[in-house]
Amino acid sequence: MTMAIEVTARHGAARAGVITTARGRITTPCFMPVGTRGVVRTLSSADLDDLGAQIVLGNTYHLMLKPGAERIGRFGGLHRFQGWDGHILTDSGGYQIFSLEPGGNVRLDDHGVTFRSTYDGSTHRLTPEGAVDIQTTLGADLQMVLDVCAALPASPAVLRLAVDRSADWAARSRTAFLARERPELSQLGIVQGGTDVALRVESAQRTVALGFDGYAVGGLSVGEERTVMLATLTATLPHLPADQPRYLMGVGDPVGMVEAIALGIDLFDCVLPTRFGRHGTILSMAGRYNLKRAENADSDRPLDDECGCPVCRRWSRAYLRHLLIVDEPTAPRLLTMHNVWWTLRLIEAAREAIGAGTLDGLRSRLLAAYG
Amino acid sequence: MTMAIEVTARHGAARAGVITTARGRITTPCFMPVGTRGVVRTLSSADLDDLGAQIVLGNTYHLMLKPGAERIGRFGGLHRFQGWDGHILTDSGGYQIFSLEPGGNVRLDDHGVTFRSTYDGSTHRLTPEGAVDIQTTLGADLQMVLDVCAALPASPAVLRLAVDRSADWAARSRTAFLARERPELSQLGIVQGGTDVALRVESAQRTVALGFDGYAVGGLSVGEERTVMLATLTATLPHLPADQPRYLMGVGDPVGMVEAIALGIDLFDCVLPTRFGRHGTILSMAGRYNLKRAENADSDRPLDDECGCPVCRRWSRAYLRHLLIVDEPTAPRLLTMHNVWWTLRLIEAAREAIGAGTLDGLRSRLLAAYG
Repeated sequence: MTMAIEVTARHGAARAGVITTARGRITTPCFMPVGTRGVVRTLSSADLDDLGAQIVLGNTYHLMLKPGAERIGRFGGLHRFQGWDGHILTDSGGYQIFSLEPGGNVRLDDHGVTFRSTYDGSTHRLTPEGAVDIQTTLGADLQMVLDVCAALPASPAVLRLAVDRSADWAARSRTAFLARERPELSQLGIVQGGTDVALRVESAQRTVALGFDGYAVGGLSVGEERTVMLATLTATLPHLPADQPRYLMGVGDPVGMVEAIALGIDLFDCVLPTRFGRHGTILSMAGRYNLKRAENADSDRPLDDECGCPVCRRWSRAYLRHLLIVDEPTAPRLLTMHNVWWTLRLIEAAREAIGAGTLDGLRSRLLAAYG
Repeated sequence: MTMAIEVTARHGAARAGVITTARGRITTPCFMPVGTRGVVRTLSSADLDDLGAQIVLGNTYHLMLKPGAERIGRFGGLHRFQGWDGHILTDSGGYQIFSLEPGGNVRLDDHGVTFRSTYDGSTHRLTPEGAVDIQTTLGADLQMVLDVCAALPASPAVLRLAVDRSADWAARSRTAFLARERPELSQLGIVQGGTDVALRVESAQRTVALGFDGYAVGGLSVGEERTVMLATLTATLPHLPADQPRYLMGVGDPVGMVEAIALGIDLFDCVLPTRFGRHGTILSMAGRYNLKRAENADSDRPLDDECGCPVCRRWSRAYLRHLLIVDEPTAPRLLTMHNVWWTLRLIEAAREAIGAGTLDGLRSRLLAAYG
């Protein structure tokens, strides 16, 4: 079963659509909150229901270490374990392995990667086939192949090796996934190549040739200028099938998402709304701001004047700032709720703007507010 | 306006009833969660709605320091500030002053108490009249007089001085409260006297003579044996008016509450259910247990087999233990929700048992489970 996307509206290269899976429908574009350890930090799956989230991410790296994929499997998979009926996408674990252990402790070879647990230092090994096994045990609806993510800037030789290895691992991942015969689950390939356009095009072609259910663009938004990221996307996306979902990994800032939507991206994930929320940085249509600033101490306004989230409907900036200042754990939770709601509604607004032909106006407004 | 209690059922000295205030009705017996800094730690007022809480406590000591009573007053009071339409009871601040600064930094004199802020070390002064002012500015529906709480064990002379001072301060508090002419608010006197029965009786008589809207028993459950606490209560309660609410301050353990209900107490507050929840200690009808224990790692059972709370309906012990072990802030929140729900339902069960004449059975069951 191929996870198809039905495009319901277009505006230039931008598209609004519906992805259909065995679990249900996902309207796109779609932002996916990150639930690293089987939960979106400070929230619960009941909160995700209330926020109208459609997909939540889980992190293979963390879940395989604690509580362990086999344990979750004995509970019937991650959906049942975390009490969530919506879609789940799991990454392959590769990104965490490379980013959590930048200074060593990671041994990469042609066959896989050996690393030490961030929890207890114990040694583990992940292979393309192992990543498929784990994600299938977790029962993830959307699964990612294990790839090699080169840290930018990288030399041409390093990028070349990463692309070659990722292509080889993608082929092995696809074979392993198809051998499991779980047609209700989907697998996405990942395009790498840094900001080298020729390498990106080559990676896209080699990945598409393997026939995945959808395609992700990885290794972007890792420090490069936004214009460089968008130029890379512009060159890459025409080489991905128009009738399958396109996922830009790790991008979740308001401008970056709307710019990428304009280029034809369907899916996003990012820790930005949740991490910002925990630290008191508020997303609003007037831009982002630090709630701790003194000017909010007596403000009776909601976090965002235009927001209809459960937090903005009930509490003032002054109250939420007070909770944050005195270190009440309710504060990071409520601010996370606002930021996730705001981000989900922003993407819904982009979806509507595609249908109405007003995406340029939304983009201009965000650029003015977020610079 | 006197805050009357209408007794709807009796079983021995135990009573079920309804307290009517200008804000509304409170069915009793009633457990009041503690929202120290304008919030019940890890929860929100929306959660209190969902849990069916009737009253939440606020702490004068903390709120006067941060964000400041005047600031809350500018928002129209604590109800509006924290987005809560139910009842609010505020303590006088005295207990925190004496318990937060046991080693000094507190200067007590006949007129009031001078202390240093736990936040920034700044010097503040609280008098009986000042405590009334602050609580009235906060708009608390139920207010407590500033009293002197002697740490137990205490010498007869120390207890005597505390009772005399508390009686003097109570008279000044009552005068100050009545002068504010806020008939929609109620004020409760506090009986002190340690575990000295004669002193307790004297304190009760002197407090009742001042004509408060309700009466609290303070200075118990501070380390003495439960039998001693219950004997003190037994001697004290006949000296409080039968037609006014009786509040046992700081008691919230299951057995202690049910025993005190049997003696005729109507209101309770305690941080026990919330503090236990944050640290993974679970209240259940089978007793309390530590969720972190290895035996829960693969348990598909809810926290309490008999509980219908939103947490028990959705998540297993194994999942909640996992969140606790990996230090996800969702864990203290969900465990707090369970413990508060469980405690509120226990008190409702006691209320029903009073009507059905089965309070002894409930007490026996709790004694067997909690020892």
